[in-house]
Amino acid sequence: MTATGSVKDRLLAGDRRVAARIISLIEDGDPAIRPLLAELFRHTGKALVIGVTGPPGAGKSTLVERMVLNWRERDRTVGVLAVDPSSPFTGGAILGDRIRMASLTGDPGVFIRSMATRTHLGGIAEATPAAIRVLDAMGTDIIVVETVGVGQSEVAIAGATDCTVLVTMPGGGDSIQAMKAGIMEIGDIFVVNKADRDGALSSQRELNAMLRLHERTPRPPVLLTQADAGEGVPTLVDTIDQYLAQMAASGGLTELRLQHLKHETLELIGRQARRQAVAALDAGTIIKFSDALRERRLDPATVANQVLSGITANHAVGCVAPTGPVRL
Amino acid sequence: MTATGSVKDRLLAGDRRVAARIISLIEDGDPAIRPLLAELFRHTGKALVIGVTGPPGAGKSTLVERMVLNWRERDRTVGVLAVDPSSPFTGGAILGDRIRMASLTGDPGVFIRSMATRTHLGGIAEATPAAIRVLDAMGTDIIVVETVGVGQSEVAIAGATDCTVLVTMPGGGDSIQAMKAGIMEIGDIFVVNKADRDGALSSQRELNAMLRLHERTPRPPVLLTQADAGEGVPTLVDTIDQYLAQMAASGGLTELRLQHLKHETLELIGRQARRQAVAALDAGTIIKFSDALRERRLDPATVANQVLSGITANHAVGCVAPTGPVRL
Repeated sequence: MTATGSVKDRLLAGDRRVAARIISLIEDGDPAIRPLLAELFRHTGKALVIGVTGPPGAGKSTLVERMVLNWRERDRTVGVLAVDPSSPFTGGAILGDRIRMASLTGDPGVFIRSMATRTHLGGIAEATPAAIRVLDAMGTDIIVVETVGVGQSEVAIAGATDCTVLVTMPGGGDSIQAMKAGIMEIGDIFVVNKADRDGALSSQRELNAMLRLHERTPRPPVLLTQADAGEGVPTLVDTIDQYLAQMAASGGLTELRLQHLKHETLELIGRQARRQAVAALDAGTIIKFSDALRERRLDPATVANQVLSGITANHAVGCVAPTGPVRL
Repeated sequence: MTATGSVKDRLLAGDRRVAARIISLIEDGDPAIRPLLAELFRHTGKALVIGVTGPPGAGKSTLVERMVLNWRERDRTVGVLAVDPSSPFTGGAILGDRIRMASLTGDPGVFIRSMATRTHLGGIAEATPAAIRVLDAMGTDIIVVETVGVGQSEVAIAGATDCTVLVTMPGGGDSIQAMKAGIMEIGDIFVVNKADRDGALSSQRELNAMLRLHERTPRPPVLLTQADAGEGVPTLVDTIDQYLAQMAASGGLTELRLQHLKHETLELIGRQARRQAVAALDAGTIIKFSDALRERRLDPATVANQVLSGITANHAVGCVAPTGPVRL
């Protein structure tokens, strides 16, 4: 990439190749991209950002593909970020699914991008909101963030979206159990996909019963879809549009986005403080505390406290390597 | 609790009620328990710690119950920590499963405890190794840490165990896909439970094929069990015992435990540095950076950098509230 100015202008003009390259640098955690991201920020806040998550096998990719086609019929440009919070070794589950989105790849109004966790959970939690803002600044109307799985990462990514669609499928109770165990709270709209299968209505009832327990107002709707045939998808897209329109009208959307930005900032402060503390450890200290741990003289919490007081003390007098106060 | 001395002595003598109370204080993140934990550390390192994880519905609780009964027949005392990394609102999936472990509750050689995430992922990752050490110090021979789900938290908890058993079940491919997406690497022994169901052998083959790709030596075994009938459980327990005996004989176990302790220490250093940085924020700074974010003048990363330089600068001169250098 050449000067920041021209890259920025090309992105603001909607250059998809530039967007792809910026997102790669974000994924790599390249600090060189920071000034550009800082400049882009004032050009963001226009896109509607929708999270789609749920257990593996629920048919999320097919559903997202149909949703995108529906928004395209309504003349809206769409970006899809498929976030795989799995390990860098296996990866793949969601990347394989991309093939099924083939119907979208020829359309210049659609931008599809898979993002994988290259390092750790913090990595993807940091990269996702930044990537969303790149697509937002590019002028994308709707941004869909699809995640696989049912864990903390999905909850983290819900902190970057305006609304979250939780997708499950009928039968077995496993999917429902998986949803119960962790991410029920983040759903604004629930979908039972593969609704042609046995048990769709009872899954819908079960979800409705669980949502009643949560006492949320308004209670999130539970819709039925059959994504491979496109059934229920226009209603789902209508429901999302209406939900977001109401959020915008009430001022709730502005407030939610501010909360998200504040939370993101606090997380960045925390992660950076953490990195600085670990980076400040010198080899001598590490060897000393390894010995203490191996011989079970000092437990991890005691070592951590001693190391941190060492770091603080030495920072105060302006030197980096902790020496004296670390009593190991 | 009264004086640390007597509490410690009672725990070391195997007092289960004291153990339960200490674990409650650990879960609560109560700092008052720190000195006791530090003292207990030198009495740990004797128990064998086995992680059991896998997707919901794989039958982990029944399998763990049978494994415990088998170890009891071999005259070993067993502790079970059932860790639920789900939200504090819904909780429950794993707690409900406890009922199925009813056969174990009358046995003084078995200690069963459910632990839930009260706050965040870091919370459970911190509390689990501490709780393991409480049971270890109490003289428990075998500690089983059972987790539900397939995410980062399972990977984090694998950092506290000597060996990890990954449990799945036949059919659907969903469980296999879920395993693929994240935790394949942490398994030392694989189990296809509910082996009386269709597809058990093909699930075993599929797992073996995936493990060949990982090129690990020795390649982890893939066993079949039918936990509700107890079938395959003695072989599983033998396999675990042999695996750990070999690890101990080769010196690998000592090395692994040291790596875990070092990792735990670095994580504690990081989390504590993070807490300190966030705690050092004063209300005025938060209001100023909220305004900058709301008006999209400064992006989260820029605000985080400015706040952190403010904190560092002020720490260096010995005052707490960041003032001058925060340009918002």
